[in-house]
Amino acid sequence: MPIDPESKRMGANLPVALGDINAAAAAIRDAVLVTACEESRTLGEICGCRIWLKFENLQFTSSFKERGALNRLRALSPEERRRGVIAMSAGNHAQGVAYHGKRLGIPVTIVMPIGTPMVKIENTRRHGADVVISGATLEEAGEFARKHGEEQGMTLIHPYDDPLIIAGQGTVALEMLRAVPSLDTLVVPIGGGGLISGVAIPARAARPDLQIIGVEAELYPSMYNAVYGKTLPMRGDTLAEGIAVKSPGKITTAIIRDLVDEIMLVSEDQIERAVASLISIEKTVAEGAGAAGLAAVMANTEWFAGRNVGLILTGGNIDTRLIASVLTRELAREGRLTQLAIDLVDRPGQLAAVSILLAEAGANIIEVSHQRTFSDLPAKATLLEVVIETRDRAHLDDVLARLGAAGFKARCV
Amino acid sequence: MPIDPESKRMGANLPVALGDINAAAAAIRDAVLVTACEESRTLGEICGCRIWLKFENLQFTSSFKERGALNRLRALSPEERRRGVIAMSAGNHAQGVAYHGKRLGIPVTIVMPIGTPMVKIENTRRHGADVVISGATLEEAGEFARKHGEEQGMTLIHPYDDPLIIAGQGTVALEMLRAVPSLDTLVVPIGGGGLISGVAIPARAARPDLQIIGVEAELYPSMYNAVYGKTLPMRGDTLAEGIAVKSPGKITTAIIRDLVDEIMLVSEDQIERAVASLISIEKTVAEGAGAAGLAAVMANTEWFAGRNVGLILTGGNIDTRLIASVLTRELAREGRLTQLAIDLVDRPGQLAAVSILLAEAGANIIEVSHQRTFSDLPAKATLLEVVIETRDRAHLDDVLARLGAAGFKARCV
Repeated sequence: MPIDPESKRMGANLPVALGDINAAAAAIRDAVLVTACEESRTLGEICGCRIWLKFENLQFTSSFKERGALNRLRALSPEERRRGVIAMSAGNHAQGVAYHGKRLGIPVTIVMPIGTPMVKIENTRRHGADVVISGATLEEAGEFARKHGEEQGMTLIHPYDDPLIIAGQGTVALEMLRAVPSLDTLVVPIGGGGLISGVAIPARAARPDLQIIGVEAELYPSMYNAVYGKTLPMRGDTLAEGIAVKSPGKITTAIIRDLVDEIMLVSEDQIERAVASLISIEKTVAEGAGAAGLAAVMANTEWFAGRNVGLILTGGNIDTRLIASVLTRELAREGRLTQLAIDLVDRPGQLAAVSILLAEAGANIIEVSHQRTFSDLPAKATLLEVVIETRDRAHLDDVLARLGAAGFKARCV
Repeated sequence: MPIDPESKRMGANLPVALGDINAAAAAIRDAVLVTACEESRTLGEICGCRIWLKFENLQFTSSFKERGALNRLRALSPEERRRGVIAMSAGNHAQGVAYHGKRLGIPVTIVMPIGTPMVKIENTRRHGADVVISGATLEEAGEFARKHGEEQGMTLIHPYDDPLIIAGQGTVALEMLRAVPSLDTLVVPIGGGGLISGVAIPARAARPDLQIIGVEAELYPSMYNAVYGKTLPMRGDTLAEGIAVKSPGKITTAIIRDLVDEIMLVSEDQIERAVASLISIEKTVAEGAGAAGLAAVMANTEWFAGRNVGLILTGGNIDTRLIASVLTRELAREGRLTQLAIDLVDRPGQLAAVSILLAEAGANIIEVSHQRTFSDLPAKATLLEVVIETRDRAHLDDVLARLGAAGFKARCV
């Protein structure tokens, strides 16, 4: 639903202006990639619109966060550089600040909450940052960073609520509009709101009629609540942890209210499918937050029908175990991987009969287990659990029909 | 080992010349992507050399095969176009021929052997080709394609042993040398040899001192056998099915003998690690054959030390179930996912004790199973199998040490 149909949406009197974005582009030019922005014809066909992908997952630290971080670092005075900077982040902002801080010879301290996965700590240390673990939550870690930075005279680099950070992130839109002038819709994930705020400024300035759509995970609708005046709950584990932010920025909220057309929410299921589609179709790895834009388009194809949509693949930092699990779950959704429970009479030859039938039907057996003691079947019966691989749902239905015709009671688990 | 240190390696009298490659580049320019060729600083650091990746996995049908296919199709006479073409392939060649045939309005028949996965059949049908399933092996399917094509007056599009196909594939090298003139080494997977033959011609012409290295899967060393006069066995299932070719081409063998410096063999383990590294570091999906070049560099870092290496990610068509399995196995290799077998005394509280200990050690429990009836332990003992996630091998060692100190006999399965 539209955020405020009465707004003029021209960005007057906002704390970040087009000139700031242009200045940021000049400031980061030598050390941040101009990533590719390519059309995905296959995703476009699937969704009934045209889709261009901006590959920010291919930045050196695998996210757009370098843009804001470098723009902010470049603005430090020589004295501030000497004293160093501090940032709170368990993710992409940490790596962006650490990497460019090291490049520029600026001491970097990163605060991460207790329980941050070791991989993220190591990834940040590898860029030369001093990592401090403190605080039970992101909020507590942020508070520690603020205080510790003040005590030590270090400049705090906020992940989003800072005009220089916002201006840096906005450079993504300059590149997209230059690469694909026909874009009429931009779909941008919202965490704290830094990226979409930055993107909205040059996009709106260049093309007042362009639709700017924000996307949040259903589990963390913080900006949605803020701009629509709602109180949807925020909770749980989301695959899009990069945008699981409970408190949106003040500056970013003001910009979004004024310039963004709409915020859409996407479910975990939709995010998973988007991550899987990007891997199987585009051969590219996006983290959950990075795939949120595609999730919104796939979930709202009527809304986007016929449009020229620009999607920002914001980052690619996703644990490989999560990738494996997302892909396996997608196979199950597509009917290609299925767990069947089959009731058998407990006598020799039953497993052989099922195996032969499955083989003849062209189903590949991945796992087998017998369950006897704890089934709720009569003592002379036994439960066979098989995980099978089939070509697609129609093939699965055929396999089930054949099992039924042969007198086996099979059900999908 | 060098193929023939005495050869002049200038490509005189070969059936494909530099002019053919340049002509192919002009012929395919409007419909095949000039893919990105980007440095991977992280992979370079890991391997002790500089590495540039050519992203042929991002072609529309996700492989370089479009280049040769389109060049061959463009050379057909109007009469040949009308009669249509036939090709034997269960993979990337099929998609390349089908896609460009459809674009050009040329009827395409693709022959695939019995047992070809439905996904590949569907991917090819989706491009409008008529798919015929015939032959128990690739060789039989190829023979059927040749005969059937002759009977029907269709032109056979050979996957590699054809000067126009070779010239089309060679355009990859033109683009790489233009993008990165400092390359001094090219590493190219070999199946039938079409790609490396094509690549070697402009590369050798431009830079006589450039090292051209071919890579084959250890399980299918057909070209290796041909050029070194060996008889290593060819057998089994390889992740690099795209280069599992038993009979190398005649034309390609001649070109490789003359222009290629060396052929390296890579193991399945090395191919898997290369696929996993490309996903976790470069956020890109390469099939086994597409990652074979990186596998060779990772397995021979001394050989490549200090070089400027160009790798061709030849294709990205890998089943998502295989990706999931490769990533999971890599986690196990890194000591991040481990199956432990722990002998317990069969009395209440033992599982709780182990769970508490694992939690305190920071290990995440993924799966648990008890095994009683079939263990070889005494009747009063029981076997606990747990799959745990740890940060790395050092963390795993720490967990094992803590279990030992608490009196539990644990071993990795």
